[in-house]
Amino acid sequence: MSEFTSYVRPCVGAMSGYIPGEQPQADKFIKLNTNENPYEPSASVATAVENALKGGLRKYPDPVANAFRARAGDVLGVPNDWILCGNGSDDILTILTRALVGEGMRLRMPYPSYVLYRTLAEIQGAIPDIVHFSVDWSLPAAFAEPADDMRLAVLANPNSPSGTCLTPEQVLKIAERLPCPLLVDEAYGDFADTNCLGLVQRNEKIMVSRSLSKSYALAGLRFGFLVAQPQWIHELMKVKDSYNCDALSISAATAAIDDQKWLEVNQNRIRATRQRMIAPLEQLGFSVQPSQANFVWCTHPERPVQPLYERLKSERILVRYMNYDGWDDGLRITVGSDEQVNVCLEALGRMI
Amino acid sequence: MSEFTSYVRPCVGAMSGYIPGEQPQADKFIKLNTNENPYEPSASVATAVENALKGGLRKYPDPVANAFRARAGDVLGVPNDWILCGNGSDDILTILTRALVGEGMRLRMPYPSYVLYRTLAEIQGAIPDIVHFSVDWSLPAAFAEPADDMRLAVLANPNSPSGTCLTPEQVLKIAERLPCPLLVDEAYGDFADTNCLGLVQRNEKIMVSRSLSKSYALAGLRFGFLVAQPQWIHELMKVKDSYNCDALSISAATAAIDDQKWLEVNQNRIRATRQRMIAPLEQLGFSVQPSQANFVWCTHPERPVQPLYERLKSERILVRYMNYDGWDDGLRITVGSDEQVNVCLEALGRMI
Repeated sequence: MSEFTSYVRPCVGAMSGYIPGEQPQADKFIKLNTNENPYEPSASVATAVENALKGGLRKYPDPVANAFRARAGDVLGVPNDWILCGNGSDDILTILTRALVGEGMRLRMPYPSYVLYRTLAEIQGAIPDIVHFSVDWSLPAAFAEPADDMRLAVLANPNSPSGTCLTPEQVLKIAERLPCPLLVDEAYGDFADTNCLGLVQRNEKIMVSRSLSKSYALAGLRFGFLVAQPQWIHELMKVKDSYNCDALSISAATAAIDDQKWLEVNQNRIRATRQRMIAPLEQLGFSVQPSQANFVWCTHPERPVQPLYERLKSERILVRYMNYDGWDDGLRITVGSDEQVNVCLEALGRMI
Repeated sequence: MSEFTSYVRPCVGAMSGYIPGEQPQADKFIKLNTNENPYEPSASVATAVENALKGGLRKYPDPVANAFRARAGDVLGVPNDWILCGNGSDDILTILTRALVGEGMRLRMPYPSYVLYRTLAEIQGAIPDIVHFSVDWSLPAAFAEPADDMRLAVLANPNSPSGTCLTPEQVLKIAERLPCPLLVDEAYGDFADTNCLGLVQRNEKIMVSRSLSKSYALAGLRFGFLVAQPQWIHELMKVKDSYNCDALSISAATAAIDDQKWLEVNQNRIRATRQRMIAPLEQLGFSVQPSQANFVWCTHPERPVQPLYERLKSERILVRYMNYDGWDDGLRITVGSDEQVNVCLEALGRMI
């Protein structure tokens, strides 16, 4: 570190930084590593982008993306001013931690879960207050317990890498016990049987974030949103970048959420493939977690899985190898198309 | 404030929040209020967006936008790894303050200038360390003076609302005296006669940010970037959202910066119109600051300007009324097309 990079805050300097899943820009890989949707988004998305392009890019976009808020509000049955739009749901997580969690304060999070929560706590100079999942991926009572200066709790539901999901009743009980607000991160919520959107009306402490990356097949677009009571939205607006969503993504996201028929067809396909993956993986000796998301978490009681990840990669099949302190390591395999999944299963069959 | 919104950090709760310039979504206004470019961007931008759209949106974008870095590096004559891409240059400012300026630390900024600097200091719980411009918009020596725990200085150059610009020699001297890094915010740099890009190699403390919003007519796209020595980029990468730029904007921005012929033609048109605005405004009694940006700052020694802003607005002509504590209020009028500027000047002529 040179003389002036010592100006970087110690909490940031000490970070290793979040490393996203591999994103080879060449198109030759079967990508089952970052939970992208294998199918193209609704055709209305391209039309919306083309229309926005005709409308021109020289002017600033709507700072709060009201077109999306209106459409999403109708679709989800919430008032428009309960919705905050973000440049991906990572932006929503960033806004929330900046608004709520100061230096030395606590951000409660489960483990293993989305590693960005910890990164965001570190950037804030806050304390990542980590509660481990039980071995069966239930959440111990400790998750809802008070602690000094705890300002926010975050819960990925469904969780990654496990794909497991708490019921809305369980989440409500947690929120009621917690001394602080609870963000339910439903990035994978559209693939689950239940979700917590209805809880937002019932308890001011509960906020729900959603992403268009996975279930709407729009990871390249960067669009997510928060549903929370309007007194939250008012405060959080202060912290977002003035024009955090661009004109093309607002238009595209509005078209995407408007096409609920597309979503339903897509959900059904992903769920069917997900179900189809379990038996073959179990036949290969994997222990497979029942999943409510668009991936399955596979551990192997008898053999190391990292070499399998490496060998798959050498065959241009990318899955996510994950290794959590105190837990078995495993492979998180995205639910791709039937064809992609078949190639992956066939390759694993040859390797095991 | 309800029981749980009291969880908002006091530094955020006390904020009024940044209010961007009015963005009527209807197309019936002559918008000379937010420094948008009046001309359509390079035609290659639309082609690039269409190509990116054909490439699909279901996959995550390149986390660091290497396509843009390569092209911008060539055009600007800096190595690729000296460039950090952002979701607008506001994102760059956000990343920098989060990385460098912790609670209770100082962020040095001039006044009057871009109000976001103060907002960002407030979100960080930091101290906005404000140094006033002199009446002639020169920067007093106090701007470069050390202060306790000063972590970053920010200088808009050209400045808004004044349109004035320090020379690279002046900026270098400031950086050499400052105890901390200096961000030179060149959002309007492409309209000026000089810029500070060459200083980045000469002094590790100097970083330069650029925006594609104004000079490339792409405010709707959200794309900006930082040029800094690579040891900075490495640290700042930790703080950005993993996928802060989307696939469409990366593609569009790469095409835009590749078309330097378009930029040159556009710069010449804006500069010519800017020059043409001065005499008529002075004939109306305005005191007009010589501008190096795509706007002119007009005060009026004899009459209040807020009613002029209101009357222009009632005629669907938007300019920016700005009122700074301890300074004359004024109108910041964007350099639009000749036609737009003529309508505005004619209306002002009737009103004064």
